[in-house]
Amino acid sequence: MLAVPIHPADINTIQGSYGIKPSLPHVPGYDGVAEVLEVGSEVQGLQSGDWVIPRILSSGTCRTHMRASPENLIKIPSDMDKVSAATFALNPGTAYRMLHDFKSLREGDVVIQNGANSAVGQAVIQIAAAMGLQTINIVRDRPEINELKQYLSSLGATLVLTEEEVRSSTAIKEMTQPILALNCVSGRSGTEILRRLAFGGVMVTYGGMSRQPVTVPIGSLIFNEVSVRGFWMSRWNTKHSDKPERQHMLDELHKLVIQKKLKPPSHSLVPFEQFKKVFENTLSAEGKVGKKQILVFD
Amino acid sequence: MLAVPIHPADINTIQGSYGIKPSLPHVPGYDGVAEVLEVGSEVQGLQSGDWVIPRILSSGTCRTHMRASPENLIKIPSDMDKVSAATFALNPGTAYRMLHDFKSLREGDVVIQNGANSAVGQAVIQIAAAMGLQTINIVRDRPEINELKQYLSSLGATLVLTEEEVRSSTAIKEMTQPILALNCVSGRSGTEILRRLAFGGVMVTYGGMSRQPVTVPIGSLIFNEVSVRGFWMSRWNTKHSDKPERQHMLDELHKLVIQKKLKPPSHSLVPFEQFKKVFENTLSAEGKVGKKQILVFD
Repeated sequence: MLAVPIHPADINTIQGSYGIKPSLPHVPGYDGVAEVLEVGSEVQGLQSGDWVIPRILSSGTCRTHMRASPENLIKIPSDMDKVSAATFALNPGTAYRMLHDFKSLREGDVVIQNGANSAVGQAVIQIAAAMGLQTINIVRDRPEINELKQYLSSLGATLVLTEEEVRSSTAIKEMTQPILALNCVSGRSGTEILRRLAFGGVMVTYGGMSRQPVTVPIGSLIFNEVSVRGFWMSRWNTKHSDKPERQHMLDELHKLVIQKKLKPPSHSLVPFEQFKKVFENTLSAEGKVGKKQILVFD
Repeated sequence: MLAVPIHPADINTIQGSYGIKPSLPHVPGYDGVAEVLEVGSEVQGLQSGDWVIPRILSSGTCRTHMRASPENLIKIPSDMDKVSAATFALNPGTAYRMLHDFKSLREGDVVIQNGANSAVGQAVIQIAAAMGLQTINIVRDRPEINELKQYLSSLGATLVLTEEEVRSSTAIKEMTQPILALNCVSGRSGTEILRRLAFGGVMVTYGGMSRQPVTVPIGSLIFNEVSVRGFWMSRWNTKHSDKPERQHMLDELHKLVIQKKLKPPSHSLVPFEQFKKVFENTLSAEGKVGKKQILVFD
């Protein structure tokens, strides 16, 4: 392995609250990039030095070395830095799919999201900007809120607001109403972005950081024809494991990385020897302000 | 006018909580059947003795006579009894659309609904039965629950359960999981039927009798790929005001009436002179146990 980002899903799996309950003992880690050191004599299409990511879930990437069947790996270009290579597929893939599969979006359309400083949120801002979309980005208030706003704006965010600012914001009223809402917080924050949707809009839930369900006003459903849906990248990847759509998406995301339109999320690198620290940090304040914890190997 | 059913929407309009806020003074009444008494010299396709229903909303049907433009009326067959003619379009239309527009249903598929004794609920049972579907029907407990269960079974309900019985029912577990849930109650009852949905199922909300929002568990959205949507017949009718889909639906519903597969909902007839009583009854216990109040004219 070269670099392994740790996601909330990894923590939730350990906590037993994720959609996948592996049998024990189990090596954690869903994501990350590896370098091929050696291939068997009958392996085609892969060679020593190639970079690969997992094709299927639960590969257990939190380890130094693994032996894998070539059909369980996807070869990726090795012209990226290793942090980009470790982070360009899963979180940006989630953002990419949510921006493509729920609404037909055209240049100038507006997308609203909460948890905008999450790794997916940062990818949403950048991919949306590359698509010519506008984004309204909601984050929790915090001491270093101005730095965060500046950082998300530098990624291409049209508007960044705290949960409190949303309610009184005039800037949000001056924008076209959003037709797509991306929700990783749920609870009150989910309801807030749902209420902002234009007629016929869709809210896609991909997380529940507030640990609250999604509460949907009846009028939004009946009179505003809003749809409430969910998205799980792992299922999409499983379903499209070797489908051309998946390769197309990876090609598009790689292109954005090379064009410097898609940066890795803000992160901390942690040596593999200190692997306990990544789990601690992901659960602690450092994880909560949105620093992706990435295991790196010598 | 010959007969005018009073709906919760009529009450909600008066209460100011409906999606339509008419300017005052306003004649209430969205639904009902009328007989043409006289036509202008240039009117084509309508003649004295024809039966008609409103093509567009807010026609104000709670009156004895009205003058209307022919383009605002739809001629219907007069081979039905007048209660059927007054009740076969709007509520059964809602049931028909929800059974056709959200999921592609095949014989044997299961639909779950709450408020199953509502006028729409009774239509859902009958139309679903005619389509070869199975229905799980949830109602509130009440003193005369056995009579209600018998009545709904006689309409073609596969299973009728009270809110309390749902949780412990073994019969429900023996059936195929539903792929469509129809919700006119919302609140806890809405969440309950949502949780029963099979993977990829859809819940359609068309009412909020509990006056509570719809609460959606995050896992249902992300891991079970359930969609939460809404339906408003009035908007559909406005959008399809003179479209062939609307005539096709009315033809199909009329056919079911003639085949005795679609009966009017259980109801009380109230003479127009006692119009205050229909509003009182709709709000009172009599309305709540699901007796549609229908104004009739001498």
